[in-house]
Parts: sequence; structure tokens; C-alpha cells
Amino acid sequence: MKKILLASTSTIYGGTYLSYLQEELAVFFANVDEILFVPYAQPSGVSYDEYTQIAQKGFESIGKKIVGLHTFENPKEAIHQAKAIFTGGGNTFLLVTRLYQFDLMGTLREVIESGIPYFGTSAGSNIAGLTMQTTNDMPIIYPPSFDTLGVVPFNLNPHYLDPDPDSKHKGETRETRIKEFHKLNDTPVVGLREGSSILFESNRFILKGTLTARIFLKDKEPFEATNEDFSSLFKQMDR
Amino acid sequence: MKKILLASTSTIYGGTYLSYLQEELAVFFANVDEILFVPYAQPSGVSYDEYTQIAQKGFESIGKKIVGLHTFENPKEAIHQAKAIFTGGGNTFLLVTRLYQFDLMGTLREVIESGIPYFGTSAGSNIAGLTMQTTNDMPIIYPPSFDTLGVVPFNLNPHYLDPDPDSKHKGETRETRIKEFHKLNDTPVVGLREGSSILFESNRFILKGTLTARIFLKDKEPFEATNEDFSSLFKQMDR
Repeated sequence: MKKILLASTSTIYGGTYLSYLQEELAVFFANVDEILFVPYAQPSGVSYDEYTQIAQKGFESIGKKIVGLHTFENPKEAIHQAKAIFTGGGNTFLLVTRLYQFDLMGTLREVIESGIPYFGTSAGSNIAGLTMQTTNDMPIIYPPSFDTLGVVPFNLNPHYLDPDPDSKHKGETRETRIKEFHKLNDTPVVGLREGSSILFESNRFILKGTLTARIFLKDKEPFEATNEDFSSLFKQMDR
Repeated sequence: MKKILLASTSTIYGGTYLSYLQEELAVFFANVDEILFVPYAQPSGVSYDEYTQIAQKGFESIGKKIVGLHTFENPKEAIHQAKAIFTGGGNTFLLVTRLYQFDLMGTLREVIESGIPYFGTSAGSNIAGLTMQTTNDMPIIYPPSFDTLGVVPFNLNPHYLDPDPDSKHKGETRETRIKEFHKLNDTPVVGLREGSSILFESNRFILKGTLTARIFLKDKEPFEATNEDFSSLFKQMDR
């Protein structure tokens, strides 16, 4: 049975990398010692090695070993062997491009569908959706497709931001952008605020954190969902 | 000789559509009575007809007639016949997809290079750059390419937003996003703030409006450019 944890962000204001998620991660990864880390979203500044070290630090206090996918000669084999997977944030266009380039999108989907625990933050959460079309990221590279893992039956908008009523800026708000997505697409979208995450286990969805999530359905007014609403909204996992 | 006006936005806070640009537009379009309007960036909500009417209203007081490109059976021919062109804002992914779909990217480039005055706002400004890869828009549709008109020797980031020092939000700032673009690409990027526009005429660039523009060059610290800096920065129009 699938087991998925999708966080809006790796780091909340005033915290360190994954600090706010420690308890959650200890439970989620209770049965594994080693987690395969997918560093491809990182546009650099930091190397894949450095990024993996950052991830390792985030898992140190709960005693998990993090191994970078980039260290394997055969990444496809590494994913097949993994006991758990974590994809970190960065740029979603870059992450998706690399996953296609290394022909790993299908492999990742396969192992997640088979029950290997999958944890994502930001771009790593984005790719769990049906497409990456509700990312906030800049198109810094041209991916072969916008289709992603589709291991959950909706798209995500991580780092969801409420419109600022005092803003004098005339760029589109996040809500406007997601509504535009629904002019051309049907997929439900979950706006996930900082500090929120979505857990799927025992065949149901749980909304984690203290905030509600903003739900966008085509041709409907967006609305706020509590955990209770959430689990009934996305009961079905049919793709 | 090319004649191009690229505005960050169509509408500034407290104004109406194109109201802040009236004087500029009167001079820019002094020699034409009719302007061909490209409405394709509009993801709907409003139809192409309605969007064209909005554009018409923006040009009413300076006595220009606006004709929607969508009203022509042969849009390629319409572009070839146009005396001036205006592309409105909306979603850049959608605009670029439609321009490729109707095979108009090359035609547009050709007539602009031949000296037909081109005015763009937001997404319409974005496509004047070498690629659309520094848009802020959501990838609501998959374009056949990110390459755009390249009638100016840089990319644009319209609606440029300075980082908010008080923000507790952990999503990437605009500056971070553009720096990420430069990890993978060389093209200079101009962050154009609300109320600013770039005019190219008599073979030189002029920065319009009261604000500086933020310039991003690969492997350099971003910096502010006044009009004086601007014209010397982008003197060369070699592609």
C-alpha cells in the first residue's frame, strides 16, 4: 500500500532544515534506516553532494542515513533497491527534466506504487501530482513533458500564498494563476501553505500541520479544507 | 529600424488599463491609425473579443483603432499587413503555445525586425526576449519551445518584485529564481518593475518610468540600472 508524505516546504520561518517535521519523519520512516535522496531539483550554488549533506543533517537526530541518488552508477537500479525515497526542493522544471533525462519517472512511480515510502518537499512534492503545471518555479530549463508521477490524484501548489489585500502589485495572485490553470485543465489543485503537509497512508489522506489547505476544483469557487474535509475529498485514488 | 516598447504591466495601482502610458503610446504610435492586437495570452474569463475591447478602451483617448488578430481568417497575413502590433498580457505559456500553434512566431519576429512598431505588456513583453524562461507565469499549457521572438538581446522579468525583508514565507524570491536561471543559461535578464517600460528606437534603449531596473548578468551580482546605464548596457543588438 502506498505511503506518501508531501510537505509544502523543507524549512519554516525560524527553523532549520526539516526541523519542524522531525516527529512526523520519525514515524513515517520508522521501519527504514536508509533513505535514498533525489537531489536533482537543486539548480546548484550547492553541489549534489552538499545538498545531500544538508538532507543528512535534517535526518541526523532521528538516526537515518541519507544516500544521494547521484552517487550511484545505475540510478534506476538504486531506486529499485531503495527502502525509502526523499526528493528535496529546488526548481521543479529542473527536477522533472533530470528525471526524464535519466529515464527515472516511471521507475519512481513504480516503486512508490509498490509501497516504498516517498517523502517530498516543495518541488519534491510537486512531482507527486499528476502534472507539474501548478509549480511556482521559473521555467529555467525545458522538460520533455509536464507530466509527473501522478501518485496522488491532484496537483500541488506548495508554498501557497494568500493574496495580500494591501498589495499595490499588479502581477497575478497565486489564486488567479491556479484559476487560469483550470481554464485549460481539470485536475484538482491543493494549495499547501508553509508548515502544512499531506500524508497518505492506510489508503487515506491526512492533512498535517495547523493550517487549512486551499482547494481548487475546476468551475468551483476555491475553498478551505480541514483535515476532515481533506480525507473525504480525496478518498478515491483512481487515476 | 526596429521600434519596440515593452511595459512591465498594462495597469498600475489606482489606474485603468494603459492609463499611465497614454503620453508614451501617443508618441510611439504617432504614425499609425490602426493597431493589430494579439489576445492569445488571455486564458479566458474574458473572450478574445472582450479582451480586444479592453485594449480598444485603453487606446480610445489617443484615437487608435484596435483590431483583434483572432478576427482574421489568415492571422499570418494579418501580421504581414499590420502597421503596428500590440500583444497584451495574461499567461506567457499560453501565448507562446498559441503563437507556435498558429505558426506566427517567425512572422511576428520578421515584421518587428522590419520596423513595424511593437508594443507589449507583461506576457507580451516577455515574448520579445530571447526566451520565455524568466516569466512568472504558471505552466498551464506545454509550449513546443521556450524560445521567443528575440527582438531584444535579453530576457525580461516583468512585474519585478523586490524581496520583502519582513517576509516569513520560504518560497524563493524573484531574485533567487532569476539567479537559478543563470545557473543554466547565459542570457541577461532585466527585472522590470511596475510602471517601468523599455523603449527601443533610433537604435538605442531607453528605460521609461521613474524607477531603476534590476539587471541580472550570469556570474555577476545583480545591480540597479538607470536609463543612462541602460542605454550603454544594451547598446548591441547582435543576436
